[in-house]
Parts: sequence; C-alpha cells; structure tokens
Amino acid sequence: MRAVVFENYQTFPSLTDVEVPEPGAGEVLLKVAGAGACHSDVSVYRDFTAEHPGALKPSFVLGHESAGWVEKLGPGVTGVEIGDAYLVYGPTGCGRCRMCVQGAENYCDNAATNPALAIGLGRDGGMAEYVAVPARNLVPLGDADPVAAAPLADAGLTPYHAIKQALPNLAGGGKSALVVGLGGLGQVAVQILRALTGAQIIATDAKQEAMDAVAGDGVETVPAGDGQVERIRDLTGGRGVDAAFDFVGAKATIATARAAAGIGSRVVVVGIADGTADWSFFGTPYESTLNGTYWGSLGDLYDVAAMYRRGQITPTIQTFAMDDALEAYRSLEAGKISGRAVVTPNA
Amino acid sequence: MRAVVFENYQTFPSLTDVEVPEPGAGEVLLKVAGAGACHSDVSVYRDFTAEHPGALKPSFVLGHESAGWVEKLGPGVTGVEIGDAYLVYGPTGCGRCRMCVQGAENYCDNAATNPALAIGLGRDGGMAEYVAVPARNLVPLGDADPVAAAPLADAGLTPYHAIKQALPNLAGGGKSALVVGLGGLGQVAVQILRALTGAQIIATDAKQEAMDAVAGDGVETVPAGDGQVERIRDLTGGRGVDAAFDFVGAKATIATARAAAGIGSRVVVVGIADGTADWSFFGTPYESTLNGTYWGSLGDLYDVAAMYRRGQITPTIQTFAMDDALEAYRSLEAGKISGRAVVTPNA
Amino acid sequence: MRAVVFENYQTFPSLTDVEVPEPGAGEVLLKVAGAGACHSDVSVYRDFTAEHPGALKPSFVLGHESAGWVEKLGPGVTGVEIGDAYLVYGPTGCGRCRMCVQGAENYCDNAATNPALAIGLGRDGGMAEYVAVPARNLVPLGDADPVAAAPLADAGLTPYHAIKQALPNLAGGGKSALVVGLGGLGQVAVQILRALTGAQIIATDAKQEAMDAVAGDGVETVPAGDGQVERIRDLTGGRGVDAAFDFVGAKATIATARAAAGIGSRVVVVGIADGTADWSFFGTPYESTLNGTYWGSLGDLYDVAAMYRRGQITPTIQTFAMDDALEAYRSLEAGKISGRAVVTPNA
Amino acid sequence: MRAVVFENYQTFPSLTDVEVPEPGAGEVLLKVAGAGACHSDVSVYRDFTAEHPGALKPSFVLGHESAGWVEKLGPGVTGVEIGDAYLVYGPTGCGRCRMCVQGAENYCDNAATNPALAIGLGRDGGMAEYVAVPARNLVPLGDADPVAAAPLADAGLTPYHAIKQALPNLAGGGKSALVVGLGGLGQVAVQILRALTGAQIIATDAKQEAMDAVAGDGVETVPAGDGQVERIRDLTGGRGVDAAFDFVGAKATIATARAAAGIGSRVVVVGIADGTADWSFFGTPYESTLNGTYWGSLGDLYDVAAMYRRGQITPTIQTFAMDDALEAYRSLEAGKISGRAVVTPNA
Repeated sequence: MRAVVFENYQTFPSLTDVEVPEPGAGEVLLKVAGAGACHSDVSVYRDFTAEHPGALKPSFVLGHESAGWVEKLGPGVTGVEIGDAYLVYGPTGCGRCRMCVQGAENYCDNAATNPALAIGLGRDGGMAEYVAVPARNLVPLGDADPVAAAPLADAGLTPYHAIKQALPNLAGGGKSALVVGLGGLGQVAVQILRALTGAQIIATDAKQEAMDAVAGDGVETVPAGDGQVERIRDLTGGRGVDAAFDFVGAKATIATARAAAGIGSRVVVVGIADGTADWSFFGTPYESTLNGTYWGSLGDLYDVAAMYRRGQITPTIQTFAMDDALEAYRSLEAGKISGRAVVTPNA
Repeated sequence: MRAVVFENYQTFPSLTDVEVPEPGAGEVLLKVAGAGACHSDVSVYRDFTAEHPGALKPSFVLGHESAGWVEKLGPGVTGVEIGDAYLVYGPTGCGRCRMCVQGAENYCDNAATNPALAIGLGRDGGMAEYVAVPARNLVPLGDADPVAAAPLADAGLTPYHAIKQALPNLAGGGKSALVVGLGGLGQVAVQILRALTGAQIIATDAKQEAMDAVAGDGVETVPAGDGQVERIRDLTGGRGVDAAFDFVGAKATIATARAAAGIGSRVVVVGIADGTADWSFFGTPYESTLNGTYWGSLGDLYDVAAMYRRGQITPTIQTFAMDDALEAYRSLEAGKISGRAVVTPNA
Repeated sequence: MRAVVFENYQTFPSLTDVEVPEPGAGEVLLKVAGAGACHSDVSVYRDFTAEHPGALKPSFVLGHESAGWVEKLGPGVTGVEIGDAYLVYGPTGCGRCRMCVQGAENYCDNAATNPALAIGLGRDGGMAEYVAVPARNLVPLGDADPVAAAPLADAGLTPYHAIKQALPNLAGGGKSALVVGLGGLGQVAVQILRALTGAQIIATDAKQEAMDAVAGDGVETVPAGDGQVERIRDLTGGRGVDAAFDFVGAKATIATARAAAGIGSRVVVVGIADGTADWSFFGTPYESTLNGTYWGSLGDLYDVAAMYRRGQITPTIQTFAMDDALEAYRSLEAGKISGRAVVTPNA
Repeated sequence: MRAVVFENYQTFPSLTDVEVPEPGAGEVLLKVAGAGACHSDVSVYRDFTAEHPGALKPSFVLGHESAGWVEKLGPGVTGVEIGDAYLVYGPTGCGRCRMCVQGAENYCDNAATNPALAIGLGRDGGMAEYVAVPARNLVPLGDADPVAAAPLADAGLTPYHAIKQALPNLAGGGKSALVVGLGGLGQVAVQILRALTGAQIIATDAKQEAMDAVAGDGVETVPAGDGQVERIRDLTGGRGVDAAFDFVGAKATIATARAAAGIGSRVVVVGIADGTADWSFFGTPYESTLNGTYWGSLGDLYDVAAMYRRGQITPTIQTFAMDDALEAYRSLEAGKISGRAVVTPNA
C-alpha cells in the first residue's frame, strides 16, 4: 500500500510502498478515510535528531490524526463491526498505569519508557491506505463523515482539552475568554467556546484575515500591536478575561494572554513556540494560574466526536489525494493551508 | 404613594395609599421602574394563614422582584449614585451568618427567626412608587432597561441558580438537558441553558403553545403523554439526560424528569406544586441525584444581570400601569399572562 | 485446582476441582493470595433465578474481590512481571465505550448486553487457586500484603467511590459526615472519611459492638432509636450533616440519613436492602441530593491501593484455608464474620 | 485608650493614647482580647512611602488580626450580643461589588479606590484596647479562647485560603503536598493539610528547628540544599507532588516548589519575598499551574474558626501585655518570635 513515511531525521518524508499491516492481538485494521497533516509532523522530520527520545525513532508512517472504516479484526477483538467508521485516538501509553486506565494516555506515567508516543508518532500512523490501531483507541463516528472528522483527533482534541480545564473558570454568566492565535486549533477553539460557554469571546491574531474568519456571531476581535491588552481589558469592563488560551506560545503571546487575564483566571498555553514567561507575584493578578497542556484524553475525544456529530465543531479542511500527500506537507510548510490539510488515501 | 398591599390572610391585595418609606441606616430609597407579579404572591394572599411562619405576616407591600432608580441614600451608604438603575435582590437574611456573608441570603442559617423572608415577602416590596432596600441588595444595571429587568430578580434568578448547580453535569461536549414546564421560569431556563452550555436541550409542557414558544434554535420539544419518556431517552441515544429541571414540581412531572435521567445526572425540582417522589435504589440510575432548590444568591444575580445586559436572557413581559396593578394579579390568576406581568409605577 | 463454584440458582456453592484457566489474549493468570467472601455472593446463590439477567448465569467460580501474584502472561501482555502482586478490579465492561475507556467499567454503557458483570460474577473469579483476568484489571500492590488487600476490591472500593462523590460537599473546615451501618463497608468508610476529610464523623448502627469498633479518635457514635436524628443534628450545631452514607439501604435507614442531612448536603445510598424513600420538596432541605451508587472505577482502585499502602485503610479480615472456603460462606450467612472473610487458596 | 499607632512612613510605631472609637452605622465596638503582630506590619512601617497606594496612608492603629468581646453596638446593628467573643475579618472592600457580596473583600473590584485596605491597614485596627469594626466582619467564636484565636485572622486564614484552592488537586487517595517555609503560616498550613486531606505531607525549611517543629505524625521533612528536589520527588514515587505551597516566595523557593510538582499539580505562592519565576512550556509538567494568592474570604474565616474550635488548628502564640506591645514588634523584627506574637490589651 502507499504510505507517507518518516524515514530519517531531518529529512522530508517519502511517499512509498509498504506492507499492509496485520492487526495484532486487541488491534483493528482500518481502511483510512482521512489523515491530517500537522505542524508537529514538520517539527518531527525537520528538527528532531537521534538525541531526541527513542519514542520517535524513524522510520514510521506519519499521520497521528486519522479516521477510517474497519477492515479486519485482530485476535480477541469484539464489539466492532467491519465497515463501521471510527476516529483514531492517537496517544499510546502503557495502557495500564493510573493515567492510562482513565483514558489519559497522553499523560502516561510510563511515557519515558514507552516504545512510541502515539499512532503516527513512533509507530505507523494513518497517512497510508491502512493503519492498525488498538481497538481501545477507536471512537465511533456513526453516520458522520470520517474525512472531515480526521483533524478532530488533534486539531479538535487539543483545544477541547485546553478549554475543558478552564470550564470551571468560565461556568455561569458574565464571563469572558481570550483566544490568541487563530490558526487551525485557534479557530476550533472559538467554535468550542461558543458552543460550551456563555463567555464573551475575544480573539486576536497577527493576521487580519485570520481574525476575519472568526469575527461576528458574538466574537470580538482585537488586532495585535499597541493598546492590544488595554482594548481586551476594556471589553471585559476592566476586570480582565476569566480564561485565556494561547495557541502560539511565544514569549510575546504568553505575555499578552497573562496581561489580559483577571483575578482567578486560567491562562493555558497550548502552542509550543518554545515560549517562556517572566512570572512575578506582584505582576500577576491574584489566583490567575498559568499552565501548559498537551493533547487530550480518550474520554475527551468521545466528547469532541459528539460535538462534531451535532455540528458544534466544523473543521475547515483542504483535501489531497494519496498521490499528492507530500504536496500537503509542502503546502503546510509554505503556510498555504487555511484550516487543515487532509489526505484521503481511499477517496 | 400608591402601593399594592397584602393586608390580610386569604384576601386579595389592595391598591392603596401609603407613606413613602424613609431609608434606614445602610438602606437606599429606590424609585420603582418595574415590579413583577409572581405566582408566589398569589399563594401568599390566597393560601397562607396565621399558622404560617411569622416572616410573612401581613400587612406589607408586595413585589419581591423589582428594579428602579436610586432616589435617596440612608445613613452610612456610600458608592451609590442618585439616579442610577439597580435590580433588587429579594432575600433578606440575617446578613451575618456563614451563608449570608457569602451572599446566600436565600439559605440564611437564621431563616427561622428572621422578621421577614424577603423584600416584598414580610417587609415592604417594590409594587409601589418607592421602595427602601438595603444597599447591599442592589445589583447595578448600568444602561440596561430596568423595566424588563424586574422579573430577573426571581424568574431569572431561580432558574439560573437551579442550572448553575448542574453546570458540572453539563460541562463539555455530548451532554443533554431536559426542561419540564415552559411557563415564565421554564422559558428563561431554556435561554440560560442555550447560552451557558453545549447541551442538547429537550423541552416539554402540557400545552403545545408553550412548546412552540421555545422550539427551534437547537431545542427539541416532546409532548406530554404516552411514550414521552421513551422519546426523550431516544433523543439522547438511550443514555438519558445529564440534567433535568422540573418547573412544575408535581408528582407526575418529577417522575418524568427522573425517568428521563441517566447515570450520574442531576434532577432539580424547582416548581412547588407540593410534589413528591417514590424513590427506590433499583428504580433510579446510579448516581442520578434528586434535589429541590429555592431562589438564588446575590452573586448569582450579578451573573443574571450580566447575561441580561449581553442579551442572553430576554424576559417576555406584559406591562401594567400602577392604576392597573391589581389587574396584573387578576390576569395572573386567570392564566392570561404569557411571560411575566410587570407593574410600572413611574412609567 | 480447587475452586468454589456457583453451580446452580438457589443452591449453596460447591468446593470442587476445575481446570486451571489459560490466560487469553491480553489476560494474565494470577496465583490467588486472597479472595473475599461477600454478601452479594450470598444474594446471587440464594436469591437469583433464571429470570435474572444473563450476565450472572451459572456456573462460574465465585470471588469478585481478590488479589494474587502473576503466574503467567497471555498473548500480547507487556509491562507485567511474573511474581509481582496485584489487586484485581472486578467489573468487566465492554472495554471500549465512553465509560469503560475512562475506567468506569462499573457503569459500562453496554452493561445490558455484556456476557458477564465482573470477574467472579458471571465469569470465573478468585475463589480458587488461580484466576485469569484482563491485564488492564490489575492494580499493582508493590510490597503490600495481597491477602489483607483482597477485600479492598469491593469492601474498600465501594465506600471509597461513594465518599469520593461527596468530597466537594466535605471539602474545607467545619464539615460533618454521617455513616449509617458499620459492617465491613461502613467500618472502612469511617477510615476513609478520617483520612481524606476534616469532617466531624458521626456513626450509627443498630448494634452497640459495631459502634464500639469505630468509636473514639474523633468519631462520635449515636445509637439508633428515639431521638437519633435530633442527637445527630445537635452534634452539627443544628445544621445537619454535609454528607450521609447509608450502608444498609433500608427504608428506615435512608429516612434517618435524609432527616439528619443539611442544606446542600449529599445523601448516598450504598446498601441494597431494597430501600425506598418518600421524597417531597418541603420535606427535604434545599439542595440536599439523594442518590444510589455502585462499586467504583479502576482509577478509584488505584487510589484505594495507595491508601492501603500508606496504612490509611486497614481492612479487618478473618482468613480461611481453601479447604474451609465453604465455611467462610456459612459463617457469613450466620452473621459470625466481623470485618471480612478472606479465603487464602495458596497459604 | 492605649494603642500602637503607625504614625509616619518609615517610622517605628508609637505606643500612645488615642480616643476610644465610636462605632458608626452598622459597626460594633470590640474590647480587644488579642491582636497579632505580623510581618506585613513591619513592611508597612519600614518600607512604605508616600508613593504607595493611598489605602495605607498613616496615621492609623495597627492590628489586622484581632479578636475580642462586643462592648457596644452602633446604629442599625442587630443579632450581636454584648460580651460575646468574635474574630475580626480584616479586609474592608467596598461591600457591594460582585466580589464583596460573596464575602471576598480581599479581592474587591474597587480595591484601587477604597479608602482603606483592611482593619489595621489604612483604618484603625486591633492593636489597642478597643476597635470599631463593621458588624459584617465579625466571626463568632462561641466558647473558644479569643486570645489564641487572634492570629487566625491572617496566619490561619491565608494558608487556609491557599490550601482551599488546591483541595480539588488533593482530593482522594494517593496524593501528596509540599510546604515550603515553616514559619507561622507554614506551620499552620501543615496542620490544615493534615486535617483536611489524606495527602502525604512533605515540608522543607532552611532551618532544621523549623522542620523539627512539624516533623512526625505523617509529615516528612526534607532539608534545603543539594538533592532537595530529587528527595521530594522520590517520596512521591517519582510523580511529583500534587500541590505545593511556598510561604517564602523567593525566586529559589518558587523554583523548588515548581520542580517538585507533578503533572496536573497546583503551585501556590503565598510568601511575598518579591519572588519571580522563569516559566517555560517544556520546563513545566503539563497542567501544573502556578499562581499567587492573597489573604482569604469571610466564608473561609468561618471555616477556620470551626477548625480552631475543633482543635484542628492550634496557633503557637507568645503573648505580650499592652505595655510591651512595641517589644512584640521589636522581637518580630529580630526574628525572635516562634509562632505568632499576640498583644493582649485587656489581659
């Protein structure tokens, strides 16, 4: 079958032929409907070296956000029907620690010694005609379209998980939330905040067109630059926002998010632009917390799938045929993708 | 000044002349913009007798949901401007117990010995040209219309408080909520659920026109009668709703709400049709809780006011001039009010 | 190997020879250190008939709370060492629904169609020399004694899960909790409340010796009978308890728990004496919730094991050799077991 | 009457004669039983200048943690008995904003424009024979000793409020907590953690005698210096603590607290040694939050008083007669006070 393979460190992936995988005990073979191309893939094949953790050692098939139809069951699998559509939960923890048994394989206690980080990150992923995944990692899609669903596995799950942490801060009337960075994840974050909270939503991005894409329907946009923080605070009546989500994660964006936040707020850094913050007691509102976050849990992905099925999350996608899969990554690197690039190996 | 006075047990109120009150220490005199006529008033003047708790002893001016403009300050009051518009928080607790100091005067530890239950319930209320209230009970309205705001003090606050209890049950994607009874409070409940949660909203009422008033915009309606519970459960994929709010509170409606609820749900009884339930371990989904609720806290009313100012709650009102104030109660008793009857003494 | 087998409905179990099981894909064979005899077993073999759900169809080896050492690994199991000690999580859900993937197999969405309810309830359990269990159901015990640990799987997990629901009600200073029924589970509940909360603990039981067993060290006991509720409320300064746990679950004990509870409290019914309650709006403190509960989650069992390892839970046990296993059930039925009867097949 | 007065910026206070205050509308005059001398007082009279916020402008009587007996009621005060003992809640917000009406006067929305920060900080406090306070700021002590209770108003309330924020992180079995800095507040923090949680408590301080004072009874101490963080993490099985409280607040102690914390933990900075932190995404465990905190709410102080009355908090105090009041501050500045210095003006 055709697959996009990360063959070596600091090397652009290949589109090549590999064996169709055989599902092991407890696994299922999926015929892939869609697989999203993600910036983290670029980081893996551009920046990683042999000195990085072994869990990401080449070679493996890329594709850590995918969805497809069940083709074949491995030994011991029950309760899954051939032909049904499923979304694939990416993280593969040890499966038996305190975190994994609660579905939080993204925070596996044994992450340091696991052979792979996720499906498509250290073990073969969905950027291929077929992918073998543990049955436990399948989230049912019912009648919903598995192609547009693919990005939910990361571009949907990651903002969902970030926002879920802050739902107590946003519960009730009179709240406000800030989204910094309106790329693929930030746009979904705005959809999730609108669906799940009554908060006033304030969105900011360096690019005007990114702000235009989310403006209206209750969303206020504030451009970057002079007076940005003051304008955000003014929109909240001076109190500052109750939660801020930074999908960029640079030093400057984290500083903006923190400065716009109010007493008792939650500031969540999602983007990994290697950002830092100069924290000080007197420079931070009381009980305004700061934290990073990473991906999400299996239970969260069930919730994300439910929101997709109800039309509360609608990922913007740009599809590529299998033969054009490398073009998807080239466009991504060139900044030409709006929303998410999805490869459709069996379209 | 003109006022609607509850003069004696089991006696229809009078529209009569009384002295303009003088604000005491820590109090403020409000010029009333609007005062809502509530079913509980009817219950007070129709059903109560001398055997009821002394906190509701006649005579007093009715009107436990009102809003108006500051006319005069009593001794020791600061931070309030003459002419500004405020909503009045009704409950008057002891003001210094563990509950009151957190703004939960509706659940005052000393309720049994307090001289009055609330402004308009045991002490003079807002169904008059002027009302004197503790400054602490004022919630600022800013530029928002105080006439339409009046019902928020009860018809807004009560469902808000009921729903707030259940926000943890409704947090995140894939949730569902049931509203039983679509009168004044139930209609506002639908607005609040839509604004604050991503839950699928299911609404039911014995009257088709009440359901028509809330249908659409994501709200599913299910008529009462045979198959009602099955249809509600079907809408939730068989799991049952995550939260149910019964604004009727009769034995039959409580039974419906409970039967429609799923594992881990919250069933909140708001209506006080003197309802009861036959609870049994095996007849109830695991961890589905059942509780009654009453009014709300001062902090909640700030949240309700914020939602009103953002257009997330829009009470449907029918106004009556001061001279027609008794007509408001007559219409209410006759079942002719849709939404809330609001008397406007200074219109 | 020797095993205690539930052979037929309404028939006392047999101590008989069966084949040593072979661990299937994803399973592990445990050499059993201890297996607890539970009242639910008695209910199963005394009361159940062919009309009960198929998930409990005879014959099968009893023992739904057990612990032991790893003897052999089935296909596909990694990360488990031969000889290590583990506690067995009983419930066996479908393993892939929204509830199971979060470790809540006790509340599996597909409970109605699963072939068995739990290890030892519908499929072979731990009342034998060996038991085969899914690797995922293993909770590591480290150096802790697996014999005394066995009852944790039910007599520890069930009260832990019940109390965990009420931790928000008991968080902070000035709280109080009531435990009704001081058998095996109620005694552990007192230990858990003392360890995890600062609540004043009030305990009640029809038997004086059961109260004596928990009295002191901050626990107040109140005998059943006249004035029971008044004495409990007096101990709380009249406010009522913040949480009540009924390990009996009879109509009278539920009524006591509810009458002793205060505003905003949680009343949890754990015992299944087929109890019922006459609930009414005006007969219940505002926001005092009522619910039943069942067993616990896999994540909870990790917490219970941690408390056992720290000495915060110390089950009282009475051990029986394999040859005396049926005597354990006979003593249990005769009411002669204080704490928990544990069969030690490999002692 | 005799009083300790902060007369001018950067000037040691005077022990002098002032008029007995007259309680205003809604106020109560207390005969002071005890008033604690706090490091923040030292900071106020040593470090503050005319450039600091007006809310702390001299002159005023010091004493922001005090307790006493009711001597006289101002106009409009009811429900308070002459002679009864009360603890004084310090913060004085506007009394009517969203935060104040919930008892969180420490986080008043109008803090910037209030005339005083607290009783004893901008308005006359309790370091005198009598003090006038708003009736709302009184927390009843019942039969408990008001002298030893005085420090609860700050040295008890501040750690309580810090820990309360982290109770969700510490709820359940298998948790651990770190206390950095074992002065007056840190010692009380250890007592509160032991009472309210089942967490393993790890305590650290630069001074061995401070650690000795809290060691034992389930508390592990780890000295500062090389290997400190590794030893703390080892005690948690490598996972890191679930909550860390830094009562020093220096750059080094904040770094220790953060490095010892695990995934999903809460790191709370209480001490105000003007500390800072170099935060980075990859240098912080996922979802480990960082925040500062300040004092507590009126509701919290009710909880603290309840814990004191149950013996769960027992402040260590060193008493000084009114004539020796300045000696209390001199000893405090000299680092000679272990626990809290309490002046007893009416002993």
